[in-house]
Amino acid sequence: MQILNNTVSRIERIDFSLAEETQQRLDRLTKPQGSLGRLEELAKQVVEITRVHSPDLTHKVVFVMAGDHGVTAEGVSAFPKEVTPQMVYNFLKGGAGINVLARHVGARVVVADLGVAVDLASHSGLIVRKVNYGTGNMSKGPAMTRQDAVRSIENGIEIFEAEYKKGVNLAATGEMGIGNTTAASAIVAAITGLAVEAVTGKGTGIDIAAWQKKVAVIGQALLVNKPDPKDGIDVLAKVGGFEIGGLVGVILAAAARRVPVVVDGFISSAAALVAVVIEPKVKDYLIASHASVEIGHKIVWEYLSLRPVLDLNLRLGEGTGAALAMGIVEAGVKILTRMSTFETAGVASQVTQ
Amino acid sequence: MQILNNTVSRIERIDFSLAEETQQRLDRLTKPQGSLGRLEELAKQVVEITRVHSPDLTHKVVFVMAGDHGVTAEGVSAFPKEVTPQMVYNFLKGGAGINVLARHVGARVVVADLGVAVDLASHSGLIVRKVNYGTGNMSKGPAMTRQDAVRSIENGIEIFEAEYKKGVNLAATGEMGIGNTTAASAIVAAITGLAVEAVTGKGTGIDIAAWQKKVAVIGQALLVNKPDPKDGIDVLAKVGGFEIGGLVGVILAAAARRVPVVVDGFISSAAALVAVVIEPKVKDYLIASHASVEIGHKIVWEYLSLRPVLDLNLRLGEGTGAALAMGIVEAGVKILTRMSTFETAGVASQVTQ
Repeated sequence: MQILNNTVSRIERIDFSLAEETQQRLDRLTKPQGSLGRLEELAKQVVEITRVHSPDLTHKVVFVMAGDHGVTAEGVSAFPKEVTPQMVYNFLKGGAGINVLARHVGARVVVADLGVAVDLASHSGLIVRKVNYGTGNMSKGPAMTRQDAVRSIENGIEIFEAEYKKGVNLAATGEMGIGNTTAASAIVAAITGLAVEAVTGKGTGIDIAAWQKKVAVIGQALLVNKPDPKDGIDVLAKVGGFEIGGLVGVILAAAARRVPVVVDGFISSAAALVAVVIEPKVKDYLIASHASVEIGHKIVWEYLSLRPVLDLNLRLGEGTGAALAMGIVEAGVKILTRMSTFETAGVASQVTQ
Repeated sequence: MQILNNTVSRIERIDFSLAEETQQRLDRLTKPQGSLGRLEELAKQVVEITRVHSPDLTHKVVFVMAGDHGVTAEGVSAFPKEVTPQMVYNFLKGGAGINVLARHVGARVVVADLGVAVDLASHSGLIVRKVNYGTGNMSKGPAMTRQDAVRSIENGIEIFEAEYKKGVNLAATGEMGIGNTTAASAIVAAITGLAVEAVTGKGTGIDIAAWQKKVAVIGQALLVNKPDPKDGIDVLAKVGGFEIGGLVGVILAAAARRVPVVVDGFISSAAALVAVVIEPKVKDYLIASHASVEIGHKIVWEYLSLRPVLDLNLRLGEGTGAALAMGIVEAGVKILTRMSTFETAGVASQVTQ
């Protein structure tokens, strides 16, 4: 709990006072004022977060955390849980969607086992911070103990800190865990108070009957566990997952280090929600990467008042949408730092009428 | 007219028969089927256009064409027309928004003078294919002769062809021309038959009174010139611009070479509309880059049944939105060509229920 408390205590409000000065700099660049819309907003947010006048986002890191879910015993997923370790190996070999997209935007991928149900073969690229061999079946009791919830968050913090030493200018979240959309829906229903049906989607691709079962299982989990919506750790412990806890830790640690965090899909957004419940100041460090097909995703963005950068009908997770959005965020920052001003370019800026 | 006719005659229907086979390949990749949404659609479109099984989009080129507009005499723009040549110099020095964003996605920028009102200082990076020193004031007569309209298109074709010899896997359109949103609105009103008010926006940033004047000027131009909506060259000649004609040429030439074209903002979309009127098969070669703030932009996308890739509240032009979208298109193609399959990665693909 010491690591978590220390991290949270270091999170400061972002410096909104830098917005005006940054907008003035943007307005001196050779373009009509405000004409680069969202790119300008992203540049301003990065300055407010980092408090760096001309940020450089060279070091981009996608944190991909894996964990298994006991609730898969209820048949809530379209894929068998063996896919979790198989996909971790795929990440390590560089053949998954997140590897391709991270390379495309020049980001590193950090792969960590927070709670896969089997022991994974050792690999130089794999960080093993396993809290347990998968969570318990949340429809019958808590997914994990409160102690393990804290441990998963602290593992995430330590993974971020180790990476921060190598350089992290922009962080993104990603995950792999068969069954984790079920956990994410339960978290979002618990924290927002919305009906389970309103926040539960088709995950990786289930039919109507399976969806109804998923909704019933989540309803049961909330009934059995009664998570306290004001206590993020309680929600995580009762209906969360180890990889989700790890991402909560990454988000808190990034905020404490003034590093902007690009939040990926629905599961990542549920982790962001838990982080914001733990420390509301975290919200302003977040960038919503994309609007996914999962219905609960949109609800989380609205609840956090975040507007997604992209809308590409993605529903893969792993950090794929966040990686693409990182490219857009970096583009915004380059606009601020690399464009010529009217003065240096010798371009007239005055309005003629 | 020979060059234009030859180019148009070489444009074939894209090969829709490749979609199914490509989707099957996408479905063997380590991800739930269809879970990369728009990225998968873009990859399929690129295969249908290029007829290449595993396309490579290394050579990305943004064609930025500049020209002046006689209609600026009516006071329709927020910037003086001297900004057109000043911005061309800015493009050549690499300090404009398009330079920054093209570098960000690894694209080359090709800068061409199709009809700037002054002679520009020579520069190794500047292609001079000037048709005339700015167009005529379209509110008083045609913007250019039909012969000059054809010449502007053929100049665009030849600029593309010269660049194609160096390698163009993916093309994007961009432009600079103070007053050219007025021309674009006139083109869109002429071709779609919609009211001028419905397709006219604030350009680089004018107030209500100036907007009303702009609408009146465009209405006058349509009344005086009566462009034939079925004749793309007639529309271009009467209410278009030289840089817009150049982009029509780039689009036609790219389609003839089976190169996908990412269409930028409102002015570029008006050029795309003219190209589609000239040869309807061109439509399937186009990728709508983004939904800009200009109201007419959305109307063109709907008219062409194209769905924009990005929505970032941009309204700069120059090719900036297209450059960003090129990065997303290339990401989609890399998903197709660089991800592992379930088989090679040893990941279970079967559904368990």
